[in-house]
Amino acid sequence: MQKILVANRGEIALRVMRSAREMGIKTVAVYSAADRNALHVRYADEAVFIGEAPSNQSYLVGDKIIAACKQTGAEGIHPGYGFLSENAAFARQVREAGLILIGPSPEAMEIMGNKLSAKAAALKYNIPMVPGTEEAITDIAEAKLRAVEVGFPILIKAAAGGGGKGMRIVDTPEDFVEQMDLAVSEATSAFGDGSVFIERYVSSPRHIEIQVLGDTHGNILHLFERDCSVQRRHQKVVEEAPSSVLTSELREAMGKCAVDVARSVNYTGAGTVEFIMDEQLNFYFLEMNTRLQVEHPVTEFITGIDLVKEQIKIARGEAISFKQEDLEIKGHAMELRVYAEDPANNFMPDIGTLETYVTPKGPGVRVDDGFEQGMEIPIYYDPMIAKLITYGKDRAEAIERMVRAIDEYHITGITTTLPFGKFVMQHEAFTTGQFDTHFVEKYFTPESLDTDIEEEALIAALVMEKLLGAGNVVLVESNGGGVSNWVRNRR
Amino acid sequence: MQKILVANRGEIALRVMRSAREMGIKTVAVYSAADRNALHVRYADEAVFIGEAPSNQSYLVGDKIIAACKQTGAEGIHPGYGFLSENAAFARQVREAGLILIGPSPEAMEIMGNKLSAKAAALKYNIPMVPGTEEAITDIAEAKLRAVEVGFPILIKAAAGGGGKGMRIVDTPEDFVEQMDLAVSEATSAFGDGSVFIERYVSSPRHIEIQVLGDTHGNILHLFERDCSVQRRHQKVVEEAPSSVLTSELREAMGKCAVDVARSVNYTGAGTVEFIMDEQLNFYFLEMNTRLQVEHPVTEFITGIDLVKEQIKIARGEAISFKQEDLEIKGHAMELRVYAEDPANNFMPDIGTLETYVTPKGPGVRVDDGFEQGMEIPIYYDPMIAKLITYGKDRAEAIERMVRAIDEYHITGITTTLPFGKFVMQHEAFTTGQFDTHFVEKYFTPESLDTDIEEEALIAALVMEKLLGAGNVVLVESNGGGVSNWVRNRR
Repeated sequence: MQKILVANRGEIALRVMRSAREMGIKTVAVYSAADRNALHVRYADEAVFIGEAPSNQSYLVGDKIIAACKQTGAEGIHPGYGFLSENAAFARQVREAGLILIGPSPEAMEIMGNKLSAKAAALKYNIPMVPGTEEAITDIAEAKLRAVEVGFPILIKAAAGGGGKGMRIVDTPEDFVEQMDLAVSEATSAFGDGSVFIERYVSSPRHIEIQVLGDTHGNILHLFERDCSVQRRHQKVVEEAPSSVLTSELREAMGKCAVDVARSVNYTGAGTVEFIMDEQLNFYFLEMNTRLQVEHPVTEFITGIDLVKEQIKIARGEAISFKQEDLEIKGHAMELRVYAEDPANNFMPDIGTLETYVTPKGPGVRVDDGFEQGMEIPIYYDPMIAKLITYGKDRAEAIERMVRAIDEYHITGITTTLPFGKFVMQHEAFTTGQFDTHFVEKYFTPESLDTDIEEEALIAALVMEKLLGAGNVVLVESNGGGVSNWVRNRR
Repeated sequence: MQKILVANRGEIALRVMRSAREMGIKTVAVYSAADRNALHVRYADEAVFIGEAPSNQSYLVGDKIIAACKQTGAEGIHPGYGFLSENAAFARQVREAGLILIGPSPEAMEIMGNKLSAKAAALKYNIPMVPGTEEAITDIAEAKLRAVEVGFPILIKAAAGGGGKGMRIVDTPEDFVEQMDLAVSEATSAFGDGSVFIERYVSSPRHIEIQVLGDTHGNILHLFERDCSVQRRHQKVVEEAPSSVLTSELREAMGKCAVDVARSVNYTGAGTVEFIMDEQLNFYFLEMNTRLQVEHPVTEFITGIDLVKEQIKIARGEAISFKQEDLEIKGHAMELRVYAEDPANNFMPDIGTLETYVTPKGPGVRVDDGFEQGMEIPIYYDPMIAKLITYGKDRAEAIERMVRAIDEYHITGITTTLPFGKFVMQHEAFTTGQFDTHFVEKYFTPESLDTDIEEEALIAALVMEKLLGAGNVVLVESNGGGVSNWVRNRR
């Protein structure tokens, strides 16, 4: 492979191109009308326009991606995450066009793309599963009996689901039928597939996932865990590695399970096996993501392995150049997803121009983004503007650096979730590692941010008073995170 | 220590403040008239103006630094490197003012500040020395006899020297007296001290230095080596760790020697013991730098230790929290000093405004700098504008990332040494590790850069021809490193 096309946009497109460039591989960007001036277009060696801004007219159109390959002579396609990255039909189309998809086989994607077929594959290796039904529910009365056996509260989940859609918690047998109907209709409308199944509801879960790599020579190994328990509406917001709850025995057991899950579909490339963990540290297989994960940089920090390079080497047919026993965890890494959303206003998406955009630097800080000062955040895509990743010799230092980096990040023109990230980093439940996936709903309110703003306003007022003399300070407003800079500039 | 003053400017001031902020310590910046808008001033919690731009009116005036501490209530001073960092008289003044210098004792500075007293201290521990005289030369006839014993060519060096000043290579006994006179007068005018001594001239040396840390509880340990053999006029331009020539036995032996050298002066804080290594891998003690080194980030990358935090903890009286056996080298790091100099024009310093200034990002890249787009490079100070540091799982990956990062670095308005850095990274002698301190004079000519520029112009011409049709391309100019961007923007 001398040239690859990156079928994505934003930070992940840049991320992939950086590794390709280091390997001496030429890159091709594709872009929609909204992304004409995007950084990934400038970074690539070549760029091909593929259509209007809505993704179903550009980034989701497999034919256009394949045509762009033919036009530029790109031999491989890196799909990033999202868009076409887990689309088995596209993976087949790529194969039929004589091109190489940098990812697993369409067969593996297909099996893991459905939670029920994924469970069926994993069962062959005796992977622990949350008690529930292993097949789609066809008979509601029978399902209700099984629910009673499993014990309420139970969870109804869509087989094709993700992001919490088609998911219902049922507290009592009386509510079962009604919630079942709602789940089926939600799943049908969201995924075009109404298959649902039931699972015991784990009330205080950690979300722990294992990074795996498999090559075409039958080698499969794992690169330890990521703890992604801090979520908001089933979306990860903070990820870290290692997890503060795993022992080395648990890590080894989960790693082995993840490798087995991958082996059940002859997995090739980089993938992630997700587990749910209860308060007694029992872990259960949830699903497998058959692509590079948003949060892959935390694994890169603690292992020193460039996952994108490994993906490309595997797609070229190379054997993985290291063994399980060569891998070890060094230090601690943390990632904060920075969104163009207003945490003080129910995380309402914000759009506009990045009037100021200065990213943090210094030891142990990595910013993966796709913007620079003066650029507009388009409304058409995911509102994530950056991933802020920090690394330290231990968890305390990774957190300390994250707080420092958040303070150093300077964005004006749009509202971001940076102050929310600071709230998480400074919350006792987080710093002590005592949290579950309900962290945000349990602890966060807009007032959690206001306290900070009030403190800043107070400091500003005191400084102003000193400058102007007592009694001359009329009004000090704060925008949260900005006043300390303002106070400094004033001097 | 709740508040520290950073008696420095530019990248190192920011570097120090970042670690202080992570530790919850407030920071005070000092600044000259030329640095009113500098980033270190904005980054600090407070800033104090200390005088006009020339350093002898501001950054070198100990009284002003101490007054700024008193004014702001700063309890400690971090001197960075250069300026007052190795000034024993200043260190005494700080102590007498009841403040804490984040660095070694004035006594240790004094002994190590003179190469002859440094050698005398190190001799107590049987540290290997380059054969020569151990005392200042008083009798030239006797010195000549010793020179004959040692064997020509020999090197005459100034005891108070640095940066190649007062240094002469003498090839034959006939030239000895004349060169001796020149060395003495050069040393007298440069350092106010005409003491010189002689050493055997090592014709193909590597410059290898060992990072040490000592605390006030008597613990001294080393953090492995840095190879700084790529130099231009005795100034380091590329540094890396680990060195490609050391075996683990040699590393251990040199580490032990470095710890002994530090022990000979009861060293506290971070310091660097420099060695010269000949082609047979014999190593000899050169000198000790009693401060944080410019190239300290490479050690931070391979060990995971934040050296500035360790300096501060030691100054607070804490014992070092890890042992020698806890330390291990992981991966490979490389640093390129980026200067505002024109490599095509004998490295003539360039000043002006950073019209474009976009720093590289992505995995394994750290940029330590003190500028942002639109800023002016002042003429008063060292022309280093940034340190570009890369990290990889091995040397090949660190180099590949450095090349990628150099390509990604986008600076217009001033000429920099980035293309020179790319030349080094791609030169076979460098990639194979077969180089010595004469690398630059041996291999680099301005034409080494021109080749690249011609290649770029050729590519640009081909692209233009494709766009405009054959025969329509009249003139394509290249500025080295910029055309590939230009070609991309053109599309």
